[in-house]
Amino acid sequence: MMIIMRHGATPTQVQKVIQRVEETYGLQTHVSQGKERTVIGLVGDIRRIIPDQLLRMEGVERLMPISRPYKLASREFIPQDASFTIGSATVGGDGLFIIAGPCSVESRSQMLETAHAVKEAGAHALRGGAFKPRTSPYSFQGLGEKGLELLAEAREATGLPVVTEVMSPDLVPLVASYADVLQIGARNMQNFALLTAAGKSGLPILLKRGPSATLDEFLLAAEYILSQGNRKVMLCERGIRTFETSTRNTTDINAIPVLKSHTYLPVILDPSHSTGHWEYVSAVARAGIAAGADGLIVEVHPHPEEALSDGQQSLKPQRFATLVKQVQQIAAAVGRRVPDFAGVTP
Amino acid sequence: MMIIMRHGATPTQVQKVIQRVEETYGLQTHVSQGKERTVIGLVGDIRRIIPDQLLRMEGVERLMPISRPYKLASREFIPQDASFTIGSATVGGDGLFIIAGPCSVESRSQMLETAHAVKEAGAHALRGGAFKPRTSPYSFQGLGEKGLELLAEAREATGLPVVTEVMSPDLVPLVASYADVLQIGARNMQNFALLTAAGKSGLPILLKRGPSATLDEFLLAAEYILSQGNRKVMLCERGIRTFETSTRNTTDINAIPVLKSHTYLPVILDPSHSTGHWEYVSAVARAGIAAGADGLIVEVHPHPEEALSDGQQSLKPQRFATLVKQVQQIAAAVGRRVPDFAGVTP
Amino acid sequence: MMIIMRHGATPTQVQKVIQRVEETYGLQTHVSQGKERTVIGLVGDIRRIIPDQLLRMEGVERLMPISRPYKLASREFIPQDASFTIGSATVGGDGLFIIAGPCSVESRSQMLETAHAVKEAGAHALRGGAFKPRTSPYSFQGLGEKGLELLAEAREATGLPVVTEVMSPDLVPLVASYADVLQIGARNMQNFALLTAAGKSGLPILLKRGPSATLDEFLLAAEYILSQGNRKVMLCERGIRTFETSTRNTTDINAIPVLKSHTYLPVILDPSHSTGHWEYVSAVARAGIAAGADGLIVEVHPHPEEALSDGQQSLKPQRFATLVKQVQQIAAAVGRRVPDFAGVTP
Amino acid sequence: MMIIMRHGATPTQVQKVIQRVEETYGLQTHVSQGKERTVIGLVGDIRRIIPDQLLRMEGVERLMPISRPYKLASREFIPQDASFTIGSATVGGDGLFIIAGPCSVESRSQMLETAHAVKEAGAHALRGGAFKPRTSPYSFQGLGEKGLELLAEAREATGLPVVTEVMSPDLVPLVASYADVLQIGARNMQNFALLTAAGKSGLPILLKRGPSATLDEFLLAAEYILSQGNRKVMLCERGIRTFETSTRNTTDINAIPVLKSHTYLPVILDPSHSTGHWEYVSAVARAGIAAGADGLIVEVHPHPEEALSDGQQSLKPQRFATLVKQVQQIAAAVGRRVPDFAGVTP
Repeated sequence: MMIIMRHGATPTQVQKVIQRVEETYGLQTHVSQGKERTVIGLVGDIRRIIPDQLLRMEGVERLMPISRPYKLASREFIPQDASFTIGSATVGGDGLFIIAGPCSVESRSQMLETAHAVKEAGAHALRGGAFKPRTSPYSFQGLGEKGLELLAEAREATGLPVVTEVMSPDLVPLVASYADVLQIGARNMQNFALLTAAGKSGLPILLKRGPSATLDEFLLAAEYILSQGNRKVMLCERGIRTFETSTRNTTDINAIPVLKSHTYLPVILDPSHSTGHWEYVSAVARAGIAAGADGLIVEVHPHPEEALSDGQQSLKPQRFATLVKQVQQIAAAVGRRVPDFAGVTP
Repeated sequence: MMIIMRHGATPTQVQKVIQRVEETYGLQTHVSQGKERTVIGLVGDIRRIIPDQLLRMEGVERLMPISRPYKLASREFIPQDASFTIGSATVGGDGLFIIAGPCSVESRSQMLETAHAVKEAGAHALRGGAFKPRTSPYSFQGLGEKGLELLAEAREATGLPVVTEVMSPDLVPLVASYADVLQIGARNMQNFALLTAAGKSGLPILLKRGPSATLDEFLLAAEYILSQGNRKVMLCERGIRTFETSTRNTTDINAIPVLKSHTYLPVILDPSHSTGHWEYVSAVARAGIAAGADGLIVEVHPHPEEALSDGQQSLKPQRFATLVKQVQQIAAAVGRRVPDFAGVTP
Repeated sequence: MMIIMRHGATPTQVQKVIQRVEETYGLQTHVSQGKERTVIGLVGDIRRIIPDQLLRMEGVERLMPISRPYKLASREFIPQDASFTIGSATVGGDGLFIIAGPCSVESRSQMLETAHAVKEAGAHALRGGAFKPRTSPYSFQGLGEKGLELLAEAREATGLPVVTEVMSPDLVPLVASYADVLQIGARNMQNFALLTAAGKSGLPILLKRGPSATLDEFLLAAEYILSQGNRKVMLCERGIRTFETSTRNTTDINAIPVLKSHTYLPVILDPSHSTGHWEYVSAVARAGIAAGADGLIVEVHPHPEEALSDGQQSLKPQRFATLVKQVQQIAAAVGRRVPDFAGVTP
Repeated sequence: MMIIMRHGATPTQVQKVIQRVEETYGLQTHVSQGKERTVIGLVGDIRRIIPDQLLRMEGVERLMPISRPYKLASREFIPQDASFTIGSATVGGDGLFIIAGPCSVESRSQMLETAHAVKEAGAHALRGGAFKPRTSPYSFQGLGEKGLELLAEAREATGLPVVTEVMSPDLVPLVASYADVLQIGARNMQNFALLTAAGKSGLPILLKRGPSATLDEFLLAAEYILSQGNRKVMLCERGIRTFETSTRNTTDINAIPVLKSHTYLPVILDPSHSTGHWEYVSAVARAGIAAGADGLIVEVHPHPEEALSDGQQSLKPQRFATLVKQVQQIAAAVGRRVPDFAGVTP
């Protein structure tokens, strides 16, 4: 952390800041006297500092963080890529991890049909929402526990592990009793009570980036989970909110190499939400793998024109199967592969 | 709702869409045959429709909503401004409603000193956070129930009603047992379980706009509360996230006249979070009143350089007192007034 | 400027950076050795540095500027507010400066009718576009020199000085021969050839902020003009582009106090473009004055339903006259005033 | 175009709007009477309409465009992909088109060294800026005509056609006398005088997307060029401005499939500006090709640590050569190829 003093700050002001840093926070200081401004560098564990307190001292203009604000998520401290198993598949190695399924669980036949179809196409896990966060109170809100039961039945029938969203801390035990991976939705990325409760479950977590969260905030949200001793976190880029309206969100493709550089956690792309239109899903999914993502989560529905939610961005099973084949080719071009369902390359 | 068919859609495709709308959803249709495209207008209660289903029919290009997606919050249906009492003050009439206090409850002496100071300066309610949503797990997380007790004590001492945040549905009963107004924070604007639980409490709600929420989404979040039968909702503009970095957020001052035009609910401005710097708070607070806001929520701390959170954007009591005087003058210029604490103009 | 070395940079890498800074750029250095990183502070005129060169040296992570990138526009070096005359009015003192008129010059009768109306209502200058930048090639592109002649005739008839846009460096002499103030449009904020040519004209410049320009970039654009020896620059906030679509742009009201803090140049608000809807113009205009703006530029058209451009955001003369009265009251509340046309308060 | 009347508009207001549309603009109308609102559909060439005029009629709430605002650029009217030659290469067919070179022309040796290196690595054209738009007036502004001469010499030595930026309409003849492709920079995307002048040159144009331009605005800018009878336009996505600061811009990867769907013009990705960091350039370049881009423009500098501009985002020749190999593999995976310099696949 560096403290930038104002142009014209007095030596007394500088001295008081140094004194505070050393006495209150127990840190050391280095003073750098520039032509226009004095800069005070702090040495030690700056997490002891409350930045706003220093900002309100006389003569202080700004603080500049030197280190990143997260620790447990940082590649600086854990250089090697994380890798963990989900069902019989592995996330985070050279094999890609592909999750597919409908936006919402709607019925037994829909789930079974979809689960068999995505398994056959090459998916490694099944997604489906039983509890649905919806912008409007007039939209379909999900089947609740009945939906969890149908997911479990589809897992039984196909062997695919289940990824499903949990929206509230008090529902973590219920959802965890059915799911293999807990999904934290984009709107809940900074629902800190939920992050903590999900982290404590010990299950792998798919953490979606909030639509206006910076990558630092995203990694700090992951830090809430990691600080519960749960290291099985997948980071999911799902598009950010910008001025552009021709797609539902703007896929931040840059986020993939940036996250891979800053953290060791696996990065998954959701091309369905990040585009919002089925016509664009395959192109952006391929782009994500080419950019270095460790996997995909794709909305697939056997009859999108009957879907109770997100039909517009859902692929039909046949198109999803074609996408998996394209992903295999892109994966080969970047030194990755799409394992078969048992986790063994054919 | 209008359905825009693609350039080149066939008569059969048009016919199938019409049939679906009429038979599945029980709506009437009007067909408008343009030079390049056919447009199908729907007549009836379009909340029966699942838009994505129509979007996936062959030949359909886009849907265009005609009505706004919210009903209970709309001024179209309730033309008159809402007005309700909080403690001895009234929100939503010609008198402004001013809430002030620290970001976090830190100690008994801090709360009592602040409560007395803001009361004397002219505030109508006391704010203070006992449960704090913090971006980093390493930041101060609030005193919890102990903080609620200190807020209640400050209310006892000053008569000021208490506004405080609730972060999780299971905490609503606890917080509601101490608070006069429940605050829903910006990060939780789309925490639908929380909106529902807070709505059910029957207490007045201060709903903060999410940092990347459109005004339609903001009003749909209010709709979740209103649909619980709770009409006492204050909408709080607290800045949105944009590319500009010289302030913490960008105050969307346009939102004030837009909201006043679209809804009858009172609109409160939070100039502390919307700027993030105490130097800019007063200018933006005045702007908000000049633009038609019904009140303010301002962070005030007696010793910002000791504050455990948000010291950088907190006013000292003396500066807050000056701001209230400025607000009185602006209020007079726009035909409003700042009532004295008992709700009676001096 | 501070150079932040990477976590794990070697002493040799640090040494090479120091050597380069001292030998190539002739600056002095201060080294601050933190727990995780080394920081090198540079002392001297850092405008000699090409930052990217340092960024590419081994072991360098980031650079952090300490000073702002503009000099001539900075209040650090010129603390006192600028003030200059335009016609018989003064910009930048305690009197506000109000510019009004149609988006486009359309006809002789339109200009004369508008000029008389806005003069009577209290405006100090007349706006009107002869050369129009239009997003679509199919929109009205302006009357060109004929429009300039009509503006000059309206000035003749009313005494109001003329503000009009110049879109291209080669047109500066022509436009300058008719105008009292050259306007640089938002889309041209970084048209550096135009900034330079306009600066050289010696005329006062109304510089509009680009829709996605940061305030630092805005002030650097002003710096291009100032560096031509032309100090008569008005900065015009006209809304920025964000995700919100209920208004044409988002008025960055924060920009007013921030600019007033960072620069001595006068700040003008354009509530017409920053909202895009006449219903919201007056509320936002009042907000701008309450926040400390030095003036307004408002679109006024006698018959908006016949206007060839921007009718949706134009006030009718009667409503503009009401706005000026409201502005007078807000001005009084913040210690400012609206001078009468001769520059003398009534 | 549909006209949405306000809730509660009177039959007389509806009638007046219909009359105006039919009599003033000579269009036909269809009226659709909904439960809450009346909608008037317009049939005919709506380019005759000035939307704001209708918006100001009593009872009108909004207009809704049905068709896209551009015609010449639309795939609806020209379904087949454009394809044209530049030097001995072809843009827009199944072969990709790769442009590479330094940000700025700095010296004869730099240009010759770079030109030979990128040719050898597989590039099809050489980029380099002689006239440089720089945010700060204190940054290197380019060598001007001397730079153009060096580009021509490098073309002479290697056979690579030259892509270089023109910043002002009066410089079009000069730059066109040296260049094979005129580049319009992002800041000039809506410099309409420049678009027109560049279009008239008849040379192929590389049009960069403005940092806050929507895709519709981007295509309307292209429309300015196309309307000069010049169909040789390449659209260049170079990142948009968002709230995210870990990269210089946010690559809008969605723009690639969206543009390919809406227009027949070739789409080129600039991964250098869209990321701003050389470490991320290759990942994003690969992503662009995987998403369907027709080519790349990449900054390459033999000694980035000596570059006068953009060294931070420039690849060294060796890394660029590796990137071209990766692009070949990705191209193969999506059914494209990287032609050798003579335009023939090896």
